[in-house]
Amino acid sequence: VSKRLPGLERQLVPTPHTAGLNGRVLVKNPHLDLMEEDVLYHLDLGTKTHNLPAMFGDIKFVCVGGSPNRMRAFAQFMQRELGLAGAGEDVADICAGSDRYAMYRAGPVLSISHGMGIPSISIMLHELIKLLHHAKCRDVTIIRIGTSGGLGIEAGSVVITDTAVDSSFQPRFEQVVLGDVVVRSTELDKDLAEELLACSRDIPDFPTLIGHTMCTYDFYEGQGRLDGALCSFSSEKKLEYLRRAYDAGVRNIEMESTAFAALCGLCGLKAAVVCVALLDRLEGDQIRASHEVLWEYQQRPQRLIAAFIRKRLGLCPTD
Amino acid sequence: VSKRLPGLERQLVPTPHTAGLNGRVLVKNPHLDLMEEDVLYHLDLGTKTHNLPAMFGDIKFVCVGGSPNRMRAFAQFMQRELGLAGAGEDVADICAGSDRYAMYRAGPVLSISHGMGIPSISIMLHELIKLLHHAKCRDVTIIRIGTSGGLGIEAGSVVITDTAVDSSFQPRFEQVVLGDVVVRSTELDKDLAEELLACSRDIPDFPTLIGHTMCTYDFYEGQGRLDGALCSFSSEKKLEYLRRAYDAGVRNIEMESTAFAALCGLCGLKAAVVCVALLDRLEGDQIRASHEVLWEYQQRPQRLIAAFIRKRLGLCPTD
Repeated sequence: VSKRLPGLERQLVPTPHTAGLNGRVLVKNPHLDLMEEDVLYHLDLGTKTHNLPAMFGDIKFVCVGGSPNRMRAFAQFMQRELGLAGAGEDVADICAGSDRYAMYRAGPVLSISHGMGIPSISIMLHELIKLLHHAKCRDVTIIRIGTSGGLGIEAGSVVITDTAVDSSFQPRFEQVVLGDVVVRSTELDKDLAEELLACSRDIPDFPTLIGHTMCTYDFYEGQGRLDGALCSFSSEKKLEYLRRAYDAGVRNIEMESTAFAALCGLCGLKAAVVCVALLDRLEGDQIRASHEVLWEYQQRPQRLIAAFIRKRLGLCPTD
Repeated sequence: VSKRLPGLERQLVPTPHTAGLNGRVLVKNPHLDLMEEDVLYHLDLGTKTHNLPAMFGDIKFVCVGGSPNRMRAFAQFMQRELGLAGAGEDVADICAGSDRYAMYRAGPVLSISHGMGIPSISIMLHELIKLLHHAKCRDVTIIRIGTSGGLGIEAGSVVITDTAVDSSFQPRFEQVVLGDVVVRSTELDKDLAEELLACSRDIPDFPTLIGHTMCTYDFYEGQGRLDGALCSFSSEKKLEYLRRAYDAGVRNIEMESTAFAALCGLCGLKAAVVCVALLDRLEGDQIRASHEVLWEYQQRPQRLIAAFIRKRLGLCPTD
């Protein structure tokens, strides 16, 4: 029943990574202009209930990550790093009326949680992109900061994604539209990835690399784990699959990057994915490091992005 | 690169809905027995850090839903409905050390959030099924209580799913395992669905029906919405797709039911899906009802499940 429509996406946006007119975010939906009101349901925001240009018009950086607590901590961290008034105080959840996602801001930085998996991040990105469009934001850079399983790299290493690939190691995102499969490109901004790598070199003891990131729909069977409720394969078959991934250039595995790259690319947002590896999947499946060690690992993408944003804003690095 | 292995699942479990030995939850993974410890990472629980049989051994009903606030409210509601000590007080989040999911209990009822989409519910279900297995639970019934878009039914109607279908209206769940596609059955327990429908008849003004539920990977393009950041189809094409779904027996659309049915079925859990329709998708895309109206709609699956659990426990109905 499903068929590929490879020409369709080219029709939609001739060159994926061209920014919109005057740096504006591209919404590719002719129906939106006909709507009197746009309710961003899962964000608990809307064009009639909120003054979106006043609330968000000056946003330049959007950082997204799975966990709501981590994204609140990131907003608080950015308040300190940017020397903003109110630093050290609590930050308010802009989406407090919904518990689907949490959203915080620190100056020109918006910090939003997206939950786990492609469907969850997709809902958030559709509504976020419409939000940035309604708010008339310009020249926005969007970065996913997350956690992942490493592949042949030391736990704690930070991977900057050059290309997001699917479970067959292909740089594509298959999206079902009205029951048909549409294939989309998952390219990310190469210059942005290099800029982030350069920033990482200024931070001491900060293992960072650029590599492919594999994105799966499942954490257990889909990533070749032996420790789920179901497992029908051997340890040898698992390692064979993970080694094939490594040979294809994959250095970490997570669950959102292909959809993130495809949707941001089509809408003209410069996008990057920066994930820390919580373990090396060639050595095991269970995440058994202590809370303290995991907490420090999860700081690493935040520290890198803070250094990057300070540099972009012309602020002196503090470390 | 992907291939179908239709024989594999039959090898795993000869008859999907047979309960495990003596009503135990079936874990189908020979590797688990070899593990000295099992860390249920996303639940922040483990076999060495927690006495799982003492904490969960007497659980008979597991209710899951997307929103953490709604699942806390459900636990509080069940405390009152079951006349438990502490009713009216706050309930503690058993997974407080993780913000991926929230878990509460009320007597023999466990209430857990699963976030949005198949990947998010799959992670939770793998760890929940292992939890029930480690805790030696017996004769557990699991019910997803959620929200959905209706199809040709009045907003506020409650749909009890007989079969979960994919975006091609087929009763199947495609799971990628080590890069290959495995197809799984999405049958649900027919007797449980009928028992729930019978319960609904005892509640006045409570529109309830049994029908197919379509499960998609995307809320916007995947469900034929015209109001996402991207939309490449016309209103006519959208309605044509939704009418085809209606003709195939689909009465509501959500984002978790196929994976839920497949995973619970394979592990011998009697499972049901009960979702309220927040709108009729043949009439629109945006969820525009007031918070109050939506709040009342979201109570309906909770009220039905409370009546069902009371009946099962031999308690007098209170309404």
